[in-house]
Amino acid sequence: VRPGGTASVPHDQLQSLVTVLDGVRLGSAQTRPELVRVTGLGRGLVAQRVNELLSWGILVENGLGVSAGGRAPRTLRFNADAGRLLVANLGVTSITAGIANLAGTIIARHHEPHDIAVGPEATLRRLEEVFDGLLAASPQDAPPLWGIGCGLPGPVEFATGRPIAPPVMPGWDHYPVSNRLAERYQAPTWVDNDVNLMAIGELRAGQAQGARNVVFVKIGGEVGAGIICAGRLHRGEQGAAGDVGHVAVVDDKSILCRCGNTGCLEALAGGHALGLQARRAALDGSSPWLAARLAEGTALTSAHVTEGASHGDPACVELVVSAGYLVGGVLATVVNFYNPSLLVIGGSVAEAGDRLLATIRQIIYSRSLPLATRELRIVRCLLGPDVGTIGAAFMVIDELFAPATLAQWIAVGTPACRPELGRSAHAA
Amino acid sequence: VRPGGTASVPHDQLQSLVTVLDGVRLGSAQTRPELVRVTGLGRGLVAQRVNELLSWGILVENGLGVSAGGRAPRTLRFNADAGRLLVANLGVTSITAGIANLAGTIIARHHEPHDIAVGPEATLRRLEEVFDGLLAASPQDAPPLWGIGCGLPGPVEFATGRPIAPPVMPGWDHYPVSNRLAERYQAPTWVDNDVNLMAIGELRAGQAQGARNVVFVKIGGEVGAGIICAGRLHRGEQGAAGDVGHVAVVDDKSILCRCGNTGCLEALAGGHALGLQARRAALDGSSPWLAARLAEGTALTSAHVTEGASHGDPACVELVVSAGYLVGGVLATVVNFYNPSLLVIGGSVAEAGDRLLATIRQIIYSRSLPLATRELRIVRCLLGPDVGTIGAAFMVIDELFAPATLAQWIAVGTPACRPELGRSAHAA
Repeated sequence: VRPGGTASVPHDQLQSLVTVLDGVRLGSAQTRPELVRVTGLGRGLVAQRVNELLSWGILVENGLGVSAGGRAPRTLRFNADAGRLLVANLGVTSITAGIANLAGTIIARHHEPHDIAVGPEATLRRLEEVFDGLLAASPQDAPPLWGIGCGLPGPVEFATGRPIAPPVMPGWDHYPVSNRLAERYQAPTWVDNDVNLMAIGELRAGQAQGARNVVFVKIGGEVGAGIICAGRLHRGEQGAAGDVGHVAVVDDKSILCRCGNTGCLEALAGGHALGLQARRAALDGSSPWLAARLAEGTALTSAHVTEGASHGDPACVELVVSAGYLVGGVLATVVNFYNPSLLVIGGSVAEAGDRLLATIRQIIYSRSLPLATRELRIVRCLLGPDVGTIGAAFMVIDELFAPATLAQWIAVGTPACRPELGRSAHAA
Repeated sequence: VRPGGTASVPHDQLQSLVTVLDGVRLGSAQTRPELVRVTGLGRGLVAQRVNELLSWGILVENGLGVSAGGRAPRTLRFNADAGRLLVANLGVTSITAGIANLAGTIIARHHEPHDIAVGPEATLRRLEEVFDGLLAASPQDAPPLWGIGCGLPGPVEFATGRPIAPPVMPGWDHYPVSNRLAERYQAPTWVDNDVNLMAIGELRAGQAQGARNVVFVKIGGEVGAGIICAGRLHRGEQGAAGDVGHVAVVDDKSILCRCGNTGCLEALAGGHALGLQARRAALDGSSPWLAARLAEGTALTSAHVTEGASHGDPACVELVVSAGYLVGGVLATVVNFYNPSLLVIGGSVAEAGDRLLATIRQIIYSRSLPLATRELRIVRCLLGPDVGTIGAAFMVIDELFAPATLAQWIAVGTPACRPELGRSAHAA
């Protein structure tokens, strides 16, 4: 019954280890005396913890720091290259993958179109080929693999790393994604919903840095949200939090959604839905612009709609505004309910033009309480397609340096070739 | 730059003080050796912290504990009667007030009808009379007053303890409620939204005990929600979180809401709205039951609607079902967005009959994603009208025993006659 600790390692030992590591890693201290000052821990304890971290290679000693009288202390530095991470974000129509260091920087990247509906075997086989290629292209003396992070475009049970009843991923239900990758690469692996990872990426490396209450909204092929509560990701009880795409926005049984329900936001305002609406507008003659694209033999997508809207095609403008109206209505409820300081809008549809964002902004400000919107900022995500893989890297980093995982390091050593690391938190 | 600490007291000193206090207070240790074992802190440090807490009277020494060989250690007990608290929850139409001990138990209570629209001066004068009466009725040797907690039926800026643009509290905007009570009683005072306090009451003393992600929904005169995120109250960025009553549910400019907008949930499904709808149903002849009540000279309220529904009056059933349908629709969005494990429904309208809850349940289960409702429990609040004052007590207790406030205790002594206590957190 140790509060917050684990069975074998005393609570205060873990806590002081995390405190010392984070003191250097997050930049508040560079020497042992500074660590003593900023952490309030004793000199002996700081020295002991620093030695532990040096022995694992996570901290390294640099040159001499500034003397406060007497011998100048050696400076300490977090070694972001002690290990490296494989990161990926699987979309419905693409694979984004990369290699990241322990500071969350993407140091190699790969992006390709891919249809997730081919199922988990074919998709993960391809992802493994991509990962293998990235590893093979690395320098000979590259650091060991310390962890893997992967995003999936559907609800994920975080504790087991498996998708659960994902609406747009046929064949993936309960597939053990995390276990497969962990075994293949002999590295601890964490899997989460793609929008959750985008929210983490935005929180740790984007405009949400330092914010406490943030909602990241992805408007791409699907529509979804990632929630930051008090500076941490809120996954919800089953990891299903943020699923605003399947909120019923119209009571119309003819609007079929890929999730099996009717009238969902995503079925009217997602990129997939916009593509279908584009085809109708091209065929019924209401959009000359889209009809011209179709006549060129192009398969119409949401990109044609946003492009047509920025060219001033009235039917395209109408489609974009009507999508923005629906998304804005749901987000106004979210703002009233959650009162965030920041709403970040990302995803391919949102990134394609200003009109959608402008409509969403207008609806939110007119429909939410004044107190809730008084200091609310609504911004576009600026991290581009990397936002998900950056988030995947920080997810792994946060898990690797969490007290429960560090307790396991103390027992078994660094994370290389330790696929079981972090699994205590994963027990059902 | 002490992480998590304050200017004058070292971080580890505060942390160990809280750890030792909570070890005894929350029941994981009863003796100094047990504290050493469960906290991982050294013997000397535990002894020092215990002495500090004994000197303030928060811990007391009882008889002898069980010996593990050698002299039996003295047992320690949290002294819930070291101080007492004044607690109140102001509704739109009532004052509920009481005295609580430091374990959150209500030991004296008072409830009366009161119209909050008379404004802050008259309302707080009356509340002070009620508080004075409760204090005067206390035993001569009652413990000193350590704090005050008060709930208001509108958005409250928690940091300053003032209501901000509350829709149904004319004259209250920016009124310094917290400062007034703190000065009058020379005690640290915290003010929050009434539904937030109900959520805290349910979390600490009701069916939500031990739950991590909870939404408390009040359906009374107004409609609102309180959000528990990872076991703690989520107030949102301006303290406006949970304001689901003013979500636009219909696009009908003729449905005027007291907040100034149109088409709000509260304007169609709140108790105030149901009262107006009851009057219409009595006058247009659609409800014989309501017409009979009106003929008796009764002013019709939502209570008559729920009573009529349980008597089987079709128009009353229709009103209740249609309110449930609207509330359920908004809560389905909340469930998809937030993925709580527990939804607690309280408030006078919700408590009056089963049909409303049954309709809400049905809509949520049919409109939310399977993963989000798989283990979702939807229950009625069972704490009755005390839920808000219990929550007020726990709000004060949590603030008094928070590290930042304990740091001030170290400097100035116990909270009696220290209205400034906890104010560091209140600075803008």
